[in-house]
Amino acid sequence: MTTTVAISEELLALGRAARAASRALAKLHTDAKDRALRAIAEGLLTQQAEVLAANQKDMDAGRRNGLGEALLDRLMLNPARLEEMARGVEDIVRLPDPVGEEFDVRILPNGLRLGRRRVPLGVIGVIFESRPNVTIDIAALCLKSGNACILRGGSEAFHSTTALVGLIRAALATTGVTQDAVQSVASTDRALVTQMLQMKGSIDLLIPRGGAELVRFVAEHATMPAVTGGIGVCHTYVDRSADLDAAVRIVFNAKVQRPSVCNALDCVLVHSGAAPKLLPALADKLAEADVELRCDARALALLGPVGRRTRVTPATPDDWGKEFLALVLAVKVVDSQDEAQAHIERYGSGHTEAILTEDYSAAMRFVDEVDAAAVLVNASTRFNDGGQFGLGSEVAISTNKMHARGPMGLRELTSYKWVVLGNGHVRP
Amino acid sequence: MTTTVAISEELLALGRAARAASRALAKLHTDAKDRALRAIAEGLLTQQAEVLAANQKDMDAGRRNGLGEALLDRLMLNPARLEEMARGVEDIVRLPDPVGEEFDVRILPNGLRLGRRRVPLGVIGVIFESRPNVTIDIAALCLKSGNACILRGGSEAFHSTTALVGLIRAALATTGVTQDAVQSVASTDRALVTQMLQMKGSIDLLIPRGGAELVRFVAEHATMPAVTGGIGVCHTYVDRSADLDAAVRIVFNAKVQRPSVCNALDCVLVHSGAAPKLLPALADKLAEADVELRCDARALALLGPVGRRTRVTPATPDDWGKEFLALVLAVKVVDSQDEAQAHIERYGSGHTEAILTEDYSAAMRFVDEVDAAAVLVNASTRFNDGGQFGLGSEVAISTNKMHARGPMGLRELTSYKWVVLGNGHVRP
Repeated sequence: MTTTVAISEELLALGRAARAASRALAKLHTDAKDRALRAIAEGLLTQQAEVLAANQKDMDAGRRNGLGEALLDRLMLNPARLEEMARGVEDIVRLPDPVGEEFDVRILPNGLRLGRRRVPLGVIGVIFESRPNVTIDIAALCLKSGNACILRGGSEAFHSTTALVGLIRAALATTGVTQDAVQSVASTDRALVTQMLQMKGSIDLLIPRGGAELVRFVAEHATMPAVTGGIGVCHTYVDRSADLDAAVRIVFNAKVQRPSVCNALDCVLVHSGAAPKLLPALADKLAEADVELRCDARALALLGPVGRRTRVTPATPDDWGKEFLALVLAVKVVDSQDEAQAHIERYGSGHTEAILTEDYSAAMRFVDEVDAAAVLVNASTRFNDGGQFGLGSEVAISTNKMHARGPMGLRELTSYKWVVLGNGHVRP
Repeated sequence: MTTTVAISEELLALGRAARAASRALAKLHTDAKDRALRAIAEGLLTQQAEVLAANQKDMDAGRRNGLGEALLDRLMLNPARLEEMARGVEDIVRLPDPVGEEFDVRILPNGLRLGRRRVPLGVIGVIFESRPNVTIDIAALCLKSGNACILRGGSEAFHSTTALVGLIRAALATTGVTQDAVQSVASTDRALVTQMLQMKGSIDLLIPRGGAELVRFVAEHATMPAVTGGIGVCHTYVDRSADLDAAVRIVFNAKVQRPSVCNALDCVLVHSGAAPKLLPALADKLAEADVELRCDARALALLGPVGRRTRVTPATPDDWGKEFLALVLAVKVVDSQDEAQAHIERYGSGHTEAILTEDYSAAMRFVDEVDAAAVLVNASTRFNDGGQFGLGSEVAISTNKMHARGPMGLRELTSYKWVVLGNGHVRP
């Protein structure tokens, strides 16, 4: 059912070079990969001029094209940000290399020595939007895990991405690692995204890093396995038995600490037994951060007439199941854990779901029954993160069930092969 | 790039029922699942009449339609075969349940209790060809791993599959497990296969069980993750240092022990230093099983003029990279391990590759560098098998790198979720 589009010769050449590079990378030991990573970090500290000049071009173009201040800020590079990127690379040097790790190793009853050995996936394609730091982050994670990568950054960051990839490739050259380990698509033509998604034989895994529209487009059109991640419609159910002070703190943290990311809270479901005390306290606390509350009728009734609290408004049907990525929170009163879980099942995106409760059975039931990449008890949804989980940096937070689910760090960028050492063994 | 086909209302209804069943199955404990499996095994022993009558219809139709004897034998059920299927189900009862297993469990420095808990994938779609025993095998593996399944058997086995699914569902009903855990597509219309491949929202994993044509069709057209498995172009490289007696035994076993399956040997690559002694001995041994050897020019020269050995013929270019599934073996003389590995890289299907050698460095190099689901040293390719690897029964031998690679047993039919237990934790 797939109508193929023609893939440009340039992309096919990138694919061939990446495949060859992936074979070389798969054989590199950790020492060699870490040397290359340190050279990249060094480059970020000592060769800033070219990258900053390229970034200036992107910033100028962005201003001319009327990019908003938030987007311009995401796009902007300066020496401090390059230093931060260098520190990020150094952090990846310190992470353990998953490649070569063996697991399920045993000697079978017939004497065969058997185990699974982690190997790189091969070639990772990454399509990302404006933040140029993603270039360094993804390239470093792919390199450490022995994967070649083909990067396609957003058009707003085209010059920055190109300069950063140039810096990476120059660093690789000084350490004898093939430059084709990291390549970028040298065009802002959007048609190339569609073509990349057809490169099944050349790209083993496609990772979209960007907004919901990009992620959905990739999920719909990619012919190779693709990560679905970064879309988090996250709920927190405040049970009747919840510690109310803790609940206010946790909900505030989950909503306010970084509202623009996928694990930020979108909807709080409050048990009707807890709502009369909790909701006014929660509304007062969230008002400190100017959070807008979109409330169902029962929550509204408990918070007093509309207009008394300036940021309290009635919810519309669209507010359920919405990822706000802003200081907006949907609020609903429920009569039971059943009702809360049914709401989560209907509206959640399978990303991050939490219960706040002092009731042991309620907590166990929530953890057992709610189907999401991460389920939390008495903690902020913001914890669903590779760094917080101790995986180091992450390439994505996957909501797929196949392969990796939740934060994808280095190990999640690997496959494995079965290694069988015999001694003349034949099958009876 | 996807043109959707209309999905029939019947299939959509199967999908909805399977999704609902998968939610119920995910909550079942091992005891409940094992009770249901034992009821299925019991049914296979005590309610054979209906299944055998249905199978007779398929056999009669098969004879009318001129099915070959081999296919008729694969299709045929009798009391002994039903008993064997019952024993297979009992074996699955004894396998450990992967669901609920927790791994990477730890208490983080901030006191959060973190772990990954295995959960079922959800709904497994299986498209298989004529062997009706696959119905029981797959249904039992899906049930044990907490997955609902939608089965689509081959049209030749339609009545047998329908009767077996009826038997399963009757058994489930006696144990209180939802019957919709196991459903089959009640039509032999081939268009339904294409429709099934479009049911991305309803089917979480598609497993094709059948010939290369089916596997390739599924890989090309499935909109959901699909296993690519069962296509094994398997090589064995006989190094100069190989123990020649062991090499003859291992190659014979790999080719002859069960030639119709994916891990059977297709091509032997013999080092020129070993070929003069090995090839005549190997040809004599393989002649015992009437194996046809398709030889390159150097192998032919060593085996004497064509016609001296009746089953020795010149290889054609098509014989390299071919999965014979029969008593045919391609034979090539190479001058180095480099040449052997280059041949494997070009022609292998990433399934099973072996080296026979007494040279430690050659063995280590082969294991490190050859990219396949299983790499073996001094053992028959026939060992790449879930049962042989101690995984119990398998649903497929995957050549994908994403998710599971190699034999897919129960654990490979699961995903995981992150479980985070806090105590008022907020992210700093």
